[in-house]
Amino acid sequence: MTASPIGIGLLGYGTVGSAVDRLLQARQEDVTRVVGAPVEVRRALVRDASAPRDSNPRAGLLTSDFAEIRDDPSITVVAEVMGGIEPTRSWMLELFAAGKSVVTANKQLLARHGAELFAAAEEHGVQLRFEASVCAAIPVVKVLRESMIASEVNAVLGIVNGTTNFMLTAMAKGADYATVLAEAQALGYAEADPTEDVTGGDAAAKVAILASIAFHTRVTIDDVPHEGIDTLDSIDVAFAGDLGYSVKLIGQARRVEQGVVVGVAPTLVPRAHPLSAVDGSFNAVMLRGDAIREVTLVGPGAGGDETASAVIGDLMGVLGTSNSGFLRADGFFRSLPIVPADDVESALYLRLDVRDQPGVLATIASILADDQVSIDSVVQRASDGRAQLVIVTHPAREGAARHAIQRIADLDVCEGTPVVLRVLSAG
Amino acid sequence: MTASPIGIGLLGYGTVGSAVDRLLQARQEDVTRVVGAPVEVRRALVRDASAPRDSNPRAGLLTSDFAEIRDDPSITVVAEVMGGIEPTRSWMLELFAAGKSVVTANKQLLARHGAELFAAAEEHGVQLRFEASVCAAIPVVKVLRESMIASEVNAVLGIVNGTTNFMLTAMAKGADYATVLAEAQALGYAEADPTEDVTGGDAAAKVAILASIAFHTRVTIDDVPHEGIDTLDSIDVAFAGDLGYSVKLIGQARRVEQGVVVGVAPTLVPRAHPLSAVDGSFNAVMLRGDAIREVTLVGPGAGGDETASAVIGDLMGVLGTSNSGFLRADGFFRSLPIVPADDVESALYLRLDVRDQPGVLATIASILADDQVSIDSVVQRASDGRAQLVIVTHPAREGAARHAIQRIADLDVCEGTPVVLRVLSAG
Repeated sequence: MTASPIGIGLLGYGTVGSAVDRLLQARQEDVTRVVGAPVEVRRALVRDASAPRDSNPRAGLLTSDFAEIRDDPSITVVAEVMGGIEPTRSWMLELFAAGKSVVTANKQLLARHGAELFAAAEEHGVQLRFEASVCAAIPVVKVLRESMIASEVNAVLGIVNGTTNFMLTAMAKGADYATVLAEAQALGYAEADPTEDVTGGDAAAKVAILASIAFHTRVTIDDVPHEGIDTLDSIDVAFAGDLGYSVKLIGQARRVEQGVVVGVAPTLVPRAHPLSAVDGSFNAVMLRGDAIREVTLVGPGAGGDETASAVIGDLMGVLGTSNSGFLRADGFFRSLPIVPADDVESALYLRLDVRDQPGVLATIASILADDQVSIDSVVQRASDGRAQLVIVTHPAREGAARHAIQRIADLDVCEGTPVVLRVLSAG
Repeated sequence: MTASPIGIGLLGYGTVGSAVDRLLQARQEDVTRVVGAPVEVRRALVRDASAPRDSNPRAGLLTSDFAEIRDDPSITVVAEVMGGIEPTRSWMLELFAAGKSVVTANKQLLARHGAELFAAAEEHGVQLRFEASVCAAIPVVKVLRESMIASEVNAVLGIVNGTTNFMLTAMAKGADYATVLAEAQALGYAEADPTEDVTGGDAAAKVAILASIAFHTRVTIDDVPHEGIDTLDSIDVAFAGDLGYSVKLIGQARRVEQGVVVGVAPTLVPRAHPLSAVDGSFNAVMLRGDAIREVTLVGPGAGGDETASAVIGDLMGVLGTSNSGFLRADGFFRSLPIVPADDVESALYLRLDVRDQPGVLATIASILADDQVSIDSVVQRASDGRAQLVIVTHPAREGAARHAIQRIADLDVCEGTPVVLRVLSAG
């Protein structure tokens, strides 16, 4: 307990950075006991060290000169909470070269440049930790990297974007997309420019990171096909509800024989599935593996203090393992191929606008059967000589199912483009 | 990667011990990368080293002489998976004195002798880890000790016994206690002697451990009042269902102003509560705190491979932090008083067998009002001149509510003893 204080540097002193500083001070006693020495934030990098701030930092804490952190020998680990790709990436590489471990909350940087950054950390014998980059205070990264070592994890799936989950929860109650988006923006869940959230881009970055650590292979955001909820029609949320499903924006990474399947898409989740009941802005990640069977983590996926809590957990983790080889090796030692979703089995939800006449369903069913797609359930709502025909299929090879759907779309009795959504199996 | 192998000892080579050995070998590549050196089980203690075993251990692995593990300088950490109180406790103390860290799955030992064991580990500068002692592969101990350092955790509540959750799930579908118990035994979920599970004793040991680490204070199993499901009537499960609740065996530890409230009891959980949907043999633990808000972990709470996976996570954790002060200090540095449930607020479910006559409800309601207990909902089922009167109260000081209930029980119109169960709030 009489060990000399350990110095921490911060890149960024906004909502998360100042919360890291505040929480570390507030929990000084616990932190000292866990680490075995006091821990203090010594320097924090900001654009303008003299600008007034609500967080009221103590004198001498802020600097606008990155070198003052990089070259400070009393700082052993740095938390990067400034975001962005550059200069963040370059500075992180400089910190590794200076022998400092880094903790980051920056999912976009990791999902794009993870390979280079992890290799550089290994080269310099330091750690790169990133709990806060995925689902804030939900400790999914630590659990995957440290608790599941003995379990061959074969699937990671979940709700990894709180904004869209908040919106989908409201849409399930009958609200339409535009109204719900405005509400999410008014409540601060959605940004003024919500593109990153509603198109699935934010979720895709998290899936890239989760897939990488679950399967020890490099997956970048460009590998992750993603659809968002911006093209989702509330009529499909209503039909799904009638059929016993919630619609959730599901991010998935599955280990299959040929490699890894990844993706983000609005997906029908059976009511009995644990992810179905995760409502509002909460996130949830389900890990499936041999020895662990199925472990699900649920909690807030965003927030300043929540993110700061994850950053501090990582800082403590780095300090705790500072004299061992633990988590030093670049964990992404496999090069598994990315397998297109078309090559694996999925159940699909299909909504068609068809002429309401005898024989239409028979024709459609026989086209599906031609491609070995069998039907789980059918609902039809007719009005004015036309019908909304909703079909949920049993799991089938997705490419074959989409081939059949294209043939169905080409039928004279079909109007417009069929709506196709994936369906999670209940198990 | 060329570091020399790290030796591990096992106390016990049954289902869990042999699974630790098997999984460590199967995942050798990953383990080596994470730890920075190969890891191997060098010795395993058993009662009879020459007895035939399904796990088919390699020659020279088994020993029936504890000293061969304690005195082996190549063994740095030992996993205790033999169970029992003695000689386990004494051997653990000897291992600490020999400079070896210990990983244990032994909840009864920790819940009874934790204070002594953690103090001894600190004295000798070694670690005692115990993930497998609570909910098998659900990493709640690691999350509480390592991820929530910056968050003042103020409540831990959950379903920490899979046997009773399996039974309650079946009872919710209408089965009675005896039938369900027989089914649980046939399926291997319940022991031939199910006392420990059905009386809440197993859950109480886990609550003692969780409360200790969440609040940094010593809580033993003797501090944890527990009721089980052995006295639960399926009529109350049915009434609860009608009122929109599941009945779950809930273990709770709450930080209140005066200290810590702990307990295990069958509890009504609102359908909208995340714990309500956790069915079958799964466990779930919800952690509430300031910075993290609410994080819930769900998964299998038992099983050989699941438990072995948790043991291996801890072994890796010890090896990773072997040259730092991390998690060395005895974490239980507070001495918080145990506060009786009577002194804090709870909502209660109350079932009374009353004479079906005018004015009975008015009398009962006024007695409750005398003790400042207000009523949330009332259901009454009448037959043959008597009625089952079910009342759910708003949260009130439990002592006051129980005082009122005693007065109600003493009424002439009341027959038998009122059934009283706690009710979780939805939030």
